[in-house]
Amino acid sequence: VSPLRREFEHIEWIRRRVRSHPRLTVGIGDDAAAIRLPHERDCLVAADMLLEGVHFDLSLCKPEQVGRKALAVNLSDMAAMAARPLAALTSIALPRGRDRDFARRLHEGFQSLADEHDVAIAGGDTNAWSGPLVVDVTVLGEATGSGPVLRSGASVGDWILATGRFGGSVTGRHLSFQPRVRQALELHQAVELHAMIDVSDGLAADLRHVLDESEVGAVVFADAIPIHPDVGRLNDGRSPLEHALTDGEDFELLFCVSPADGRRLLDDAPIDVDLSHIGEIVAELGCSLRGDDGAQRPLADAGWEHEF
Amino acid sequence: VSPLRREFEHIEWIRRRVRSHPRLTVGIGDDAAAIRLPHERDCLVAADMLLEGVHFDLSLCKPEQVGRKALAVNLSDMAAMAARPLAALTSIALPRGRDRDFARRLHEGFQSLADEHDVAIAGGDTNAWSGPLVVDVTVLGEATGSGPVLRSGASVGDWILATGRFGGSVTGRHLSFQPRVRQALELHQAVELHAMIDVSDGLAADLRHVLDESEVGAVVFADAIPIHPDVGRLNDGRSPLEHALTDGEDFELLFCVSPADGRRLLDDAPIDVDLSHIGEIVAELGCSLRGDDGAQRPLADAGWEHEF
Repeated sequence: VSPLRREFEHIEWIRRRVRSHPRLTVGIGDDAAAIRLPHERDCLVAADMLLEGVHFDLSLCKPEQVGRKALAVNLSDMAAMAARPLAALTSIALPRGRDRDFARRLHEGFQSLADEHDVAIAGGDTNAWSGPLVVDVTVLGEATGSGPVLRSGASVGDWILATGRFGGSVTGRHLSFQPRVRQALELHQAVELHAMIDVSDGLAADLRHVLDESEVGAVVFADAIPIHPDVGRLNDGRSPLEHALTDGEDFELLFCVSPADGRRLLDDAPIDVDLSHIGEIVAELGCSLRGDDGAQRPLADAGWEHEF
Repeated sequence: VSPLRREFEHIEWIRRRVRSHPRLTVGIGDDAAAIRLPHERDCLVAADMLLEGVHFDLSLCKPEQVGRKALAVNLSDMAAMAARPLAALTSIALPRGRDRDFARRLHEGFQSLADEHDVAIAGGDTNAWSGPLVVDVTVLGEATGSGPVLRSGASVGDWILATGRFGGSVTGRHLSFQPRVRQALELHQAVELHAMIDVSDGLAADLRHVLDESEVGAVVFADAIPIHPDVGRLNDGRSPLEHALTDGEDFELLFCVSPADGRRLLDDAPIDVDLSHIGEIVAELGCSLRGDDGAQRPLADAGWEHEF
């Protein structure tokens, strides 16, 4: 069986495996997929590439988990825009030593999460090569409500809120996290979201992206950072707070709202994930970490600059 | 400089380098890009991954050529749907030994072809790793005229037409071909295109895709296949016709129209690329090659089954 023939066979298998979707007017089996978007809604699109040895280790996880993660990080990007994901394209480079079963299990990882989120697997590309596994997923979605929520809308005085808990994702959660798609849509309905991002690079680094795009600064409250219990499984001499601020791959939402909307969210708790008020937007550029003693220290992407 | 910092710097460089585009409402620098599509037009999307050592050899070509090819194969997919490309996402895995200049030259390859086709570079993903170069491009476009042209619409009696010439692309043309985007739009306006595909796997293999999707067969005229002069640069004992039918990466259009429309296209020549009438659609499944002596032999994806 030639590589091209194997590729066709895998595509045919995927084609039988995927579900139809009312928005997918042309699915797998043509030169491109076609997706119907409602009148006057922007089409949102994001892509994330996962590399063996960088983003996952096949000696420590199953192919299903790799497929799931590759789609999950993209769904998290849609959540960060408060967009509804509709379809995904999955492109893979399979190491030659991996068999048909491996490719199918990888797909099952995409498919199970896609089904959970009512996302159509619309196409992609399948290749075999002598290199490590590469998985690149593109997700398409539609803007909802008042449109996509950008990184650039934070205003001085805004409260900075976050879903969930941070740190220690590398101990396993980076493979099993639930992208906050539904929660983002619910928040977008409940209040006016000024700016939002999902935490992939790390809480401090991703907050910095919001500050840079919004041309503002922030004060972060050290004692308000919700630390994930997974941090306790790491023993590298760094403090739990440092892990929470810098580990990354938490895939929680970090967003800015008016103080009144922030108060309302904390009081009403309209979503099924804990919300924390972790800081506020200030006019002075840069980012500071305020300790419970009131002292402020510069907060860099890789943590704070002096011992806390 | 950390890998993450280098990645951010490269993204910032790209961001300064790209052009704005009226359809791109959110560009590089957020969690997703946003593209505005006109009312009631389907959004077309395709992805193609190019792998070092499989689709290109960096000892034989420049990074600009790799970037150009990665976008060009995707634009060719849009052409195959008679869609207008609007935006592209470029995801790359850079080998650690490659420097900033290499990454920028790769991007220049995307950018120059994107500018030629008025396509916005809307985002993507940039990674560094110890593996070979991987480039995965996703392109988004809009359906035009009477909608996307599928592989599945070929009817018994249709003429099979092709743009350009076939074979020998590996001698260099696979890096420099011009995707037939404009020609596809012009054909879509001039006649009713029943089915269309771009030739990437090979003329015989891609015709097979059309036949499979349309549930019809075809007779191909051996003496009507336009053979590219590049075939003369190959000396492997295979005939020019065999090369033209099976080499692949020609990225020409293969399409089916009524005989009346086919005649009109040959008479009027409404596009700036040669058109050839290379066969016709028949009810009997399978694909045959008819010689100038009138004898027919089965045509398989890898060539004809007996010596011709």
